[in-house]
Amino acid sequence: MNVSIIVIGDELLIGQVTDTNSGFLARTMRPAGWTVVDVDVVPDDNSRIRNAVLEALDRAEVVLTTGGLGPTKDDITKQALMDVFGGELYRDAEVEANVREVVGKRGIRLNTLTADQALVPTSCSVIQNRLGTAPIMVFSKGTKTLVAMPGVPFETRGMFTAEVFPMLLRRYAPDVALRSDVIQAIDITESDLAIRLSSWEESLPSYMHLAYLPQPGLIRLRLDGSHADRAALDAMMDRCREELITLVGDNLFADKDMTPAACLIELLAARGLKVATAESCTGGSVSAAITSVPGASAVMQGAVVSYSNDVKTGVLGVDPLIIETEGAVSAPVVEQMAAGVARLCGADCAIATSGVAGPGGGTPDKPVGTVWMCVLTPAGSHSWCCRFPGDRARIVDRTVMTTLIRLCMAVKKL
Amino acid sequence: MNVSIIVIGDELLIGQVTDTNSGFLARTMRPAGWTVVDVDVVPDDNSRIRNAVLEALDRAEVVLTTGGLGPTKDDITKQALMDVFGGELYRDAEVEANVREVVGKRGIRLNTLTADQALVPTSCSVIQNRLGTAPIMVFSKGTKTLVAMPGVPFETRGMFTAEVFPMLLRRYAPDVALRSDVIQAIDITESDLAIRLSSWEESLPSYMHLAYLPQPGLIRLRLDGSHADRAALDAMMDRCREELITLVGDNLFADKDMTPAACLIELLAARGLKVATAESCTGGSVSAAITSVPGASAVMQGAVVSYSNDVKTGVLGVDPLIIETEGAVSAPVVEQMAAGVARLCGADCAIATSGVAGPGGGTPDKPVGTVWMCVLTPAGSHSWCCRFPGDRARIVDRTVMTTLIRLCMAVKKL
Repeated sequence: MNVSIIVIGDELLIGQVTDTNSGFLARTMRPAGWTVVDVDVVPDDNSRIRNAVLEALDRAEVVLTTGGLGPTKDDITKQALMDVFGGELYRDAEVEANVREVVGKRGIRLNTLTADQALVPTSCSVIQNRLGTAPIMVFSKGTKTLVAMPGVPFETRGMFTAEVFPMLLRRYAPDVALRSDVIQAIDITESDLAIRLSSWEESLPSYMHLAYLPQPGLIRLRLDGSHADRAALDAMMDRCREELITLVGDNLFADKDMTPAACLIELLAARGLKVATAESCTGGSVSAAITSVPGASAVMQGAVVSYSNDVKTGVLGVDPLIIETEGAVSAPVVEQMAAGVARLCGADCAIATSGVAGPGGGTPDKPVGTVWMCVLTPAGSHSWCCRFPGDRARIVDRTVMTTLIRLCMAVKKL
Repeated sequence: MNVSIIVIGDELLIGQVTDTNSGFLARTMRPAGWTVVDVDVVPDDNSRIRNAVLEALDRAEVVLTTGGLGPTKDDITKQALMDVFGGELYRDAEVEANVREVVGKRGIRLNTLTADQALVPTSCSVIQNRLGTAPIMVFSKGTKTLVAMPGVPFETRGMFTAEVFPMLLRRYAPDVALRSDVIQAIDITESDLAIRLSSWEESLPSYMHLAYLPQPGLIRLRLDGSHADRAALDAMMDRCREELITLVGDNLFADKDMTPAACLIELLAARGLKVATAESCTGGSVSAAITSVPGASAVMQGAVVSYSNDVKTGVLGVDPLIIETEGAVSAPVVEQMAAGVARLCGADCAIATSGVAGPGGGTPDKPVGTVWMCVLTPAGSHSWCCRFPGDRARIVDRTVMTTLIRLCMAVKKL
């Protein structure tokens, strides 16, 4: 099934908001074999929305729109859809009841603008939006369906999963079996990996395809297949996946699509180990990455962000003399930070970071991007230095990824 | 100047990667009065790329593409562009020298796939990519220009700012003056605010426009104007901005587009105050938000992530008896966490969080989403409880935003 997504809103085109809805919708539909063939981002402009809708209806069986359904004057999607599908506005009693319920739960009073969310076109059917005030509108044209959803990610995600996609699945039967497998490689460049895999890649059957998704610190390899016969597809995918894992060899980081933080938690939990982090330049981002994974509390004890040297010495027990002679960005400091936080938090494993994230603070000796890192396990500690390129956010991201990956590799060897 | 952006890559359409390049490009061009009229996300498919390019050249003077220029087989943008603009591949000596230099700096050896990045179409001119191996290609068609850039955000951002946009500015003179001002409101719903601003909004001149950008915890109001005469535009924008600030009144959070974390740092620095955070459910995300702002080290002392109760009592000095009687998610616990971390880190102000981020851990009394928060200043402490909707990530985001905004408001009153 081909799906076209239209993302509506001036705020997206001037770069004030980043669209994450289309990616979520694509990920949700993919296991059922539904393919997003196009994402079109358009402004809050009637003729542009109309044209995008007409083009999308040409291109795909199902069109999903997000955004432009708010109660304010800049939201004009409803009118643009009536210009395409016809109909006129009427006040829908069920929608009004739902709006009252949603507003009531939020403990705020209903005003006239929000009450007008109950005005819906006669040309659509409605899915009640349990998570917000904008009704979800379903339009049909021949065999084609357009669903207009709000732009608020929380509402779109919740309602698409719970009601919109199940309705679409009932309406259309999946036509082809699809499967995507991901494995992850480290310590190799994209092109070196591509050369190693080149002849194998050429021998893949025509209905399979390998994609390289390089990220800071690792490369995800995605093997896609589509076939009319689910069993044949699965058999071939299983075989090719095993061959790929063998070829990646020592560069294998993970044989599934899982963040380094989730891998770490799985590895630690299996061994009954606890972890803590001591962070300077990363400012808590390593800890935040670990605790973003549900179930982190089974292995995560805590963290100390030692942004000032006083906290490094006073809380983590780093020797002030070492800071003076070696500098805060040095091997002995990250070693002492890791040992200190493990002791303080009662953890078996630890990550420590200290670096120059910039834009200020660089020296000829330790330019912006210089980061000392340490991973500690019951088998001992290892510290090393990297010079990461890029700006503050990129340097922090790279440090988070690198330390999580290194601790995973160290824990695997225990 | 109208700009159309084409984002190329299968990984975007299946939702494995989120496009942040188009937003960056839009934000960079906007101050010069350049408007992004469309963002089209297309797969690594020759005919889809060709069609998108032809449509974009119809719609805009300048077309920017990102992605699909890697050395691997799945990247086919170069061929698709030759199918539109003609030409054939030749090995460019300058590009080859640049590829060698970039690869050399990374301390890795040059392989044949990467060396082939030096193959460029005869139909384009090249901007050397100092940050990566894929050359940036500039094609012309009549008065129109297409620039093909890599998809790696670090490379695109760096090269667009340093060389691509300056080249485009030399090629095209800006045709109309544009300006966008942002102010931020809190403690009011979008629709209540819209009702308050309604008659004022209707009285705006036709060349000005107000947009509502609701985010968790605050609403950004963006006032856009475009006019042939820069001085006339500035005078009217200044007047309307002041009127808007007056109408927002007590709900004003900030009179410019600045994150709550950046606001907090500015407010604390102006008063010579230091801050620390004690985090349970947010896992370091409040600290990470603060330290993501350059210059945070002037005010940020450190943080303790007390994910386990042992760390709450042993490191932050929370009374174990209170945890037993009131629970870890309670007013006295966040009060003691805030006081504890301020004392431990030598800070004047503090934020503390303790809540149930889910998906597990909820009780009838304290369901998932229940979060106790505390802000501490030299004038005293204030703790309160919220029940945030949504999943783990959303609950953490809301907690981070809410605590940063509340500490800003408390510091403003000092």
